[in-house]
Amino acid sequence: MKVANLEDLFLHTLQDIYFAENQILKALPKMIKAADSKDLGKALSSHLEETKEHVTRLEKVFELLGEKAKAEKCPAIEGIIKEADELMKDIKDPDTRDAAMIAAAQAVEHYEITRYGTLVSWGKLLGKKDAVALLSDTLKEEYAADDKLTKIAESKLNKEAA
Amino acid sequence: MKVANLEDLFLHTLQDIYFAENQILKALPKMIKAADSKDLGKALSSHLEETKEHVTRLEKVFELLGEKAKAEKCPAIEGIIKEADELMKDIKDPDTRDAAMIAAAQAVEHYEITRYGTLVSWGKLLGKKDAVALLSDTLKEEYAADDKLTKIAESKLNKEAA
Repeated sequence: MKVANLEDLFLHTLQDIYFAENQILKALPKMIKAADSKDLGKALSSHLEETKEHVTRLEKVFELLGEKAKAEKCPAIEGIIKEADELMKDIKDPDTRDAAMIAAAQAVEHYEITRYGTLVSWGKLLGKKDAVALLSDTLKEEYAADDKLTKIAESKLNKEAA
Repeated sequence: MKVANLEDLFLHTLQDIYFAENQILKALPKMIKAADSKDLGKALSSHLEETKEHVTRLEKVFELLGEKAKAEKCPAIEGIIKEADELMKDIKDPDTRDAAMIAAAQAVEHYEITRYGTLVSWGKLLGKKDAVALLSDTLKEEYAADDKLTKIAESKLNKEAA
Protein backbone atom coordinates (compact mmCIF):
# COMPACT_ATOMS: atom_id res chain seq x y z
CA MET A 1 0.00 0.00 0.00
CA LYS A 2 1.02 3.62 -0.54
CA VAL A 3 1.60 5.46 2.74
CA ALA A 4 0.97 9.18 2.17
CA ASN A 5 0.05 10.28 5.68
CA LEU A 6 -0.41 9.20 9.31
CA GLU A 7 -3.89 7.84 8.52
CA ASP A 8 -2.33 5.43 5.99
CA LEU A 9 0.46 4.53 8.40
CA PHE A 10 -2.13 3.75 11.09
CA LEU A 11 -3.92 1.37 8.70
CA HIS A 12 -0.62 -0.19 7.56
CA THR A 13 0.42 -0.88 11.19
CA LEU A 14 -3.01 -2.32 11.94
CA GLN A 15 -2.53 -4.77 9.05
CA ASP A 16 0.95 -5.61 10.37
CA ILE A 17 -0.29 -6.44 13.90
CA TYR A 18 -3.30 -8.31 12.45
CA PHE A 19 -0.82 -10.56 10.63
CA ALA A 20 1.25 -10.92 13.83
CA GLU A 21 -1.75 -11.86 16.01
CA ASN A 22 -2.79 -14.51 13.50
CA GLN A 23 0.73 -15.97 13.46
CA ILE A 24 0.74 -16.03 17.27
CA LEU A 25 -2.61 -17.82 17.20
CA LYS A 26 -0.94 -20.59 15.16
CA ALA A 27 2.25 -20.72 17.26
CA LEU A 28 0.71 -20.84 20.76
CA PRO A 29 -0.85 -24.33 20.61
CA LYS A 30 2.57 -25.79 19.69
CA MET A 31 4.17 -23.97 22.62
CA ILE A 32 1.43 -25.12 25.03
CA LYS A 33 2.04 -28.71 23.93
CA ALA A 34 5.81 -28.35 24.41
CA ALA A 35 5.59 -26.68 27.86
CA ASP A 36 6.79 -28.88 30.71
CA SER A 37 5.75 -26.59 33.58
CA LYS A 38 2.04 -26.55 34.39
CA ASP A 39 2.21 -22.83 35.27
CA LEU A 40 3.73 -22.03 31.89
CA GLY A 41 1.16 -24.19 30.07
CA LYS A 42 -1.68 -22.43 31.89
CA ALA A 43 -0.26 -18.96 31.21
CA LEU A 44 0.13 -19.73 27.50
CA SER A 45 -3.37 -21.26 27.32
CA SER A 46 -4.96 -18.20 28.87
CA HIS A 47 -2.96 -16.02 26.48
CA LEU A 48 -4.29 -18.06 23.57
CA GLU A 49 -7.84 -17.15 24.63
CA GLU A 50 -6.82 -13.50 24.94
CA THR A 51 -5.19 -13.60 21.51
CA LYS A 52 -8.47 -14.77 19.92
CA GLU A 53 -10.13 -11.74 21.51
CA HIS A 54 -7.33 -9.47 20.23
CA VAL A 55 -8.00 -10.66 16.68
CA THR A 56 -11.71 -9.93 17.12
CA ARG A 57 -10.93 -6.46 18.48
CA LEU A 58 -8.68 -5.72 15.50
CA GLU A 59 -11.51 -6.75 13.17
CA LYS A 60 -13.76 -4.27 14.99
CA VAL A 61 -11.14 -1.55 14.50
CA PHE A 62 -10.96 -2.28 10.76
CA GLU A 63 -14.77 -2.03 10.70
CA LEU A 64 -14.67 1.31 12.53
CA LEU A 65 -12.29 2.58 9.84
CA GLY A 66 -14.59 1.30 7.10
CA GLU A 67 -11.85 -1.06 5.93
CA LYS A 68 -11.76 -4.80 5.31
CA ALA A 69 -9.60 -6.74 7.80
CA LYS A 70 -6.36 -7.47 5.95
CA ALA A 71 -3.04 -8.94 7.08
CA GLU A 72 0.22 -7.40 5.90
CA LYS A 73 3.16 -9.83 6.04
CA CYS A 74 5.36 -8.88 8.98
CA PRO A 75 8.90 -10.32 8.84
CA ALA A 76 9.62 -9.27 12.44
CA ILE A 77 7.07 -11.57 14.06
CA GLU A 78 7.98 -14.34 11.62
CA GLY A 79 11.58 -14.03 12.78
CA ILE A 80 10.67 -14.15 16.47
CA ILE A 81 8.48 -17.23 15.97
CA LYS A 82 11.09 -18.93 13.78
CA GLU A 83 13.73 -18.50 16.49
CA ALA A 84 11.33 -19.91 19.10
CA ASP A 85 10.52 -22.89 16.89
CA GLU A 86 14.17 -23.76 16.35
CA LEU A 87 15.00 -23.57 20.07
CA MET A 88 11.93 -25.65 21.00
CA LYS A 89 13.11 -28.41 18.66
CA ASP A 90 16.80 -28.24 19.62
CA ILE A 91 16.58 -28.18 23.42
CA LYS A 92 16.07 -31.58 25.03
CA ASP A 93 16.16 -30.57 28.73
CA PRO A 94 12.57 -29.63 29.73
CA ASP A 95 13.48 -26.86 32.20
CA THR A 96 15.89 -25.21 29.76
CA ARG A 97 13.30 -25.53 26.98
CA ASP A 98 10.68 -23.87 29.18
CA ALA A 99 13.12 -21.03 29.97
CA ALA A 100 13.71 -20.54 26.23
CA MET A 101 9.97 -20.57 25.54
CA ILE A 102 9.33 -17.91 28.17
CA ALA A 103 12.02 -15.73 26.60
CA ALA A 104 10.46 -16.23 23.17
CA ALA A 105 6.95 -15.48 24.44
CA GLN A 106 8.25 -12.30 26.07
CA ALA A 107 9.86 -11.23 22.79
CA VAL A 108 6.44 -11.68 21.18
CA GLU A 109 4.76 -9.65 23.95
CA HIS A 110 7.27 -6.82 23.56
CA TYR A 111 6.69 -6.74 19.81
CA GLU A 112 2.96 -6.42 20.44
CA ILE A 113 3.46 -3.82 23.19
CA THR A 114 5.48 -1.58 20.87
CA ARG A 115 3.00 -1.90 17.97
CA TYR A 116 -0.15 -1.38 20.08
CA GLY A 117 1.58 1.48 21.94
CA THR A 118 2.27 3.18 18.61
CA LEU A 119 -1.29 2.55 17.37
CA VAL A 120 -2.83 4.00 20.56
CA SER A 121 -0.65 7.10 20.28
CA TRP A 122 -1.44 7.64 16.56
CA GLY A 123 -5.12 6.81 17.11
CA LYS A 124 -5.39 9.58 19.71
CA LEU A 125 -3.81 12.12 17.36
CA LEU A 126 -6.18 11.07 14.59
CA GLY A 127 -9.20 11.40 16.92
CA LYS A 128 -10.21 7.74 16.65
CA LYS A 129 -11.68 7.38 20.14
CA ASP A 130 -13.49 4.04 19.73
CA ALA A 131 -10.50 2.42 18.05
CA VAL A 132 -8.18 3.74 20.77
CA ALA A 133 -10.41 2.20 23.48
CA LEU A 134 -10.22 -1.25 21.85
CA LEU A 135 -6.48 -1.03 21.18
CA SER A 136 -5.79 0.17 24.74
CA ASP A 137 -7.62 -2.84 26.20
CA THR A 138 -5.35 -5.16 24.22
CA LEU A 139 -2.23 -3.16 25.14
CA LYS A 140 -3.06 -3.59 28.85
CA GLU A 141 -3.46 -7.35 28.39
CA GLU A 142 -0.12 -7.63 26.57
CA TYR A 143 1.64 -5.84 29.45
CA ALA A 144 -0.10 -8.16 31.94
CA ALA A 145 0.88 -11.27 29.93
CA ASP A 146 4.51 -10.12 29.89
CA ASP A 147 4.46 -9.54 33.68
CA LYS A 148 2.94 -12.97 34.28
CA LEU A 149 5.75 -14.59 32.25
CA THR A 150 8.40 -12.67 34.20
CA LYS A 151 6.89 -13.94 37.46
CA ILE A 152 6.82 -17.56 36.26
CA ALA A 153 10.42 -17.28 35.10
CA GLU A 154 11.69 -15.73 38.30
CA SER A 155 9.70 -17.86 40.72
CA LYS A 156 10.47 -21.30 39.52
CA LEU A 157 11.38 -22.22 36.03
CA ASN A 158 14.73 -20.60 35.51
CA LYS A 159 15.92 -21.85 38.90
CA GLU A 160 15.26 -25.39 37.78
CA ALA A 161 17.06 -24.79 34.50
CA ALA A 162 20.10 -23.29 36.28
CA MET B 1 25.21 -24.61 18.81
CA LYS B 2 23.77 -27.32 21.06
CA VAL B 3 21.77 -25.88 23.96
CA ALA B 4 21.88 -28.37 26.85
CA ASN B 5 21.30 -26.05 29.83
CA LEU B 6 20.69 -22.47 30.93
CA GLU B 7 24.40 -21.67 30.65
CA ASP B 8 24.28 -22.57 26.94
CA LEU B 9 21.05 -20.64 26.48
CA PHE B 10 22.66 -17.57 28.07
CA LEU B 11 25.56 -17.77 25.62
CA HIS B 12 23.18 -18.37 22.67
CA THR B 13 21.11 -15.30 23.58
CA LEU B 14 24.27 -13.24 24.00
CA GLN B 15 25.27 -14.20 20.43
CA ASP B 16 21.77 -13.28 19.23
CA ILE B 17 21.84 -9.79 20.76
CA TYR B 18 25.45 -9.31 19.57
CA PHE B 19 24.21 -9.90 16.03
CA ALA B 20 21.27 -7.54 16.64
CA GLU B 21 23.45 -4.71 18.02
CA ASN B 22 25.76 -4.97 15.01
CA GLN B 23 22.80 -4.80 12.61
CA ILE B 24 21.49 -1.75 14.47
CA LEU B 25 24.92 -0.15 14.17
CA LYS B 26 24.59 -0.46 10.38
CA ALA B 27 20.96 0.69 10.23
CA LEU B 28 21.18 3.81 12.40
CA PRO B 29 23.33 6.01 10.08
CA LYS B 30 20.75 5.51 7.29
CA MET B 31 17.95 6.48 9.66
CA ILE B 32 19.85 9.55 10.89
CA LYS B 33 20.32 10.65 7.27
CA ALA B 34 16.62 10.13 6.51
CA ALA B 35 15.33 11.94 9.63
CA ASP B 36 13.64 15.27 8.89
CA SER B 37 13.18 16.41 12.49
CA LYS B 38 16.30 17.72 14.23
CA ASP B 39 15.16 16.21 17.55
CA LEU B 40 14.79 12.79 15.98
CA GLY B 41 18.16 13.05 14.23
CA LYS B 42 19.84 14.02 17.51
CA ALA B 43 18.14 11.21 19.46
CA LEU B 44 19.21 8.63 16.86
CA SER B 45 22.76 10.02 16.76
CA SER B 46 23.13 9.77 20.50
CA HIS B 47 21.72 6.24 20.37
CA LEU B 48 24.32 5.37 17.74
CA GLU B 49 27.05 6.33 20.22
CA GLU B 50 25.33 4.26 22.93
CA THR B 51 25.05 1.29 20.57
CA LYS B 52 28.82 1.33 19.97
CA GLU B 53 29.25 1.14 23.75
CA HIS B 54 26.69 -1.72 23.95
CA VAL B 55 28.75 -3.73 21.46
CA THR B 56 31.90 -3.12 23.54
CA ARG B 57 30.07 -4.21 26.71
CA LEU B 58 28.89 -7.41 25.04
CA GLU B 59 32.48 -8.14 24.01
CA LYS B 60 33.48 -7.72 27.67
CA VAL B 61 30.73 -10.17 28.70
CA PHE B 62 31.99 -12.74 26.18
CA GLU B 63 35.47 -12.24 27.66
CA LEU B 64 34.14 -12.76 31.21
CA LEU B 65 32.63 -16.06 30.03
CA GLY B 66 35.94 -17.07 28.45
CA GLU B 67 34.27 -17.12 25.04
CA LYS B 68 35.05 -15.48 21.71
CA ALA B 69 32.57 -12.77 20.69
CA LYS B 70 30.37 -14.40 18.05
CA ALA B 71 27.19 -13.25 16.30
CA GLU B 72 24.31 -15.68 15.83
CA LYS B 73 22.00 -14.68 12.96
CA CYS B 74 18.79 -13.28 14.43
CA PRO B 75 15.85 -13.22 11.99
CA ALA B 76 13.76 -11.11 14.37
CA ILE B 77 15.97 -8.03 14.22
CA GLU B 78 16.48 -8.50 10.48
CA GLY B 79 12.69 -8.45 10.09
CA ILE B 80 12.28 -5.28 12.15
CA ILE B 81 15.04 -3.49 10.20
CA LYS B 82 13.70 -4.72 6.85
CA GLU B 83 10.26 -3.30 7.64
CA ALA B 84 11.82 0.02 8.66
CA ASP B 85 13.88 0.14 5.46
CA GLU B 86 10.86 -0.44 3.24
CA LEU B 87 8.78 2.23 4.98
CA MET B 88 11.65 4.74 4.83
CA LYS B 89 11.88 4.27 1.08
CA ASP B 90 8.13 4.25 0.43
CA ILE B 91 7.00 7.28 2.42
CA LYS B 92 7.52 10.63 0.71
CA ASP B 93 5.98 12.95 3.33
CA PRO B 94 8.80 13.86 5.80
CA ASP B 95 6.60 14.07 8.94
CA THR B 96 4.92 10.73 8.20
CA ARG B 97 8.32 9.17 7.45
CA ASP B 98 9.67 10.44 10.76
CA ALA B 99 6.64 8.97 12.58
CA ALA B 100 7.28 5.60 10.90
CA MET B 101 10.97 5.75 11.81
CA ILE B 102 10.18 6.44 15.46
CA ALA B 103 7.83 3.43 15.49
CA ALA B 104 10.55 1.27 13.90
CA ALA B 105 13.20 2.49 16.34
CA GLN B 106 10.86 1.71 19.24
CA ALA B 107 10.31 -1.82 17.92
CA VAL B 108 14.11 -2.21 17.92
CA GLU B 109 14.32 -0.87 21.49
CA HIS B 110 11.63 -3.28 22.69
CA TYR B 111 13.44 -6.20 21.08
CA GLU B 112 16.60 -5.21 22.94
CA ILE B 113 14.71 -4.62 26.21
CA THR B 114 13.24 -8.12 26.14
CA ARG B 115 16.58 -9.79 25.28
CA TYR B 116 18.66 -7.83 27.82
CA GLY B 117 15.91 -8.34 30.44
CA THR B 118 16.11 -12.10 29.90
CA LEU B 119 19.93 -12.06 30.00
CA VAL B 120 19.97 -10.09 33.27
CA SER B 121 17.50 -12.51 34.84
CA TRP B 122 19.40 -15.62 33.69
CA GLY B 123 22.77 -14.05 34.57
CA LYS B 124 21.60 -13.52 38.16
CA LEU B 125 20.51 -17.16 38.47
CA LEU B 126 23.84 -18.31 37.05
CA GLY B 127 25.74 -16.10 39.53
CA LYS B 128 27.42 -14.00 36.83
CA LYS B 129 27.64 -10.75 38.78
CA ASP B 130 30.06 -8.82 36.56
CA ALA B 131 28.19 -9.76 33.40
CA VAL B 132 24.87 -8.78 35.01
CA ALA B 133 26.27 -5.34 35.91
CA LEU B 134 27.30 -4.68 32.29
CA LEU B 135 24.04 -6.01 30.83
CA SER B 136 21.95 -4.00 33.33
CA ASP B 137 23.69 -0.77 32.30
CA THR B 138 22.71 -1.41 28.69
CA LEU B 139 19.16 -2.42 29.65
CA LYS B 140 18.70 0.94 31.45
CA GLU B 141 19.93 2.82 28.37
CA GLU B 142 17.53 0.92 26.09
CA TYR B 143 14.60 1.86 28.34
CA ALA B 144 15.76 5.50 28.35
CA ALA B 145 16.11 5.52 24.54
CA ASP B 146 12.58 4.15 24.18
CA ASP B 147 11.22 6.85 26.56
CA LYS B 148 13.02 9.57 24.63
CA LEU B 149 11.45 8.40 21.37
CA THR B 150 7.98 8.35 22.97
CA LYS B 151 8.48 11.95 24.10
CA ILE B 152 9.62 13.11 20.66
CA ALA B 153 6.66 11.35 19.05
CA GLU B 154 4.11 12.79 21.45
CA SER B 155 5.49 16.28 21.65
CA LYS B 156 5.80 17.18 18.03
CA LEU B 157 6.35 14.77 15.26
CA ASN B 158 3.13 12.83 15.16
CA LYS B 159 1.12 16.01 15.44
CA GLU B 160 2.77 17.32 12.30
CA ALA B 161 2.11 14.05 10.51
CA ALA B 162 -1.58 14.03 11.55
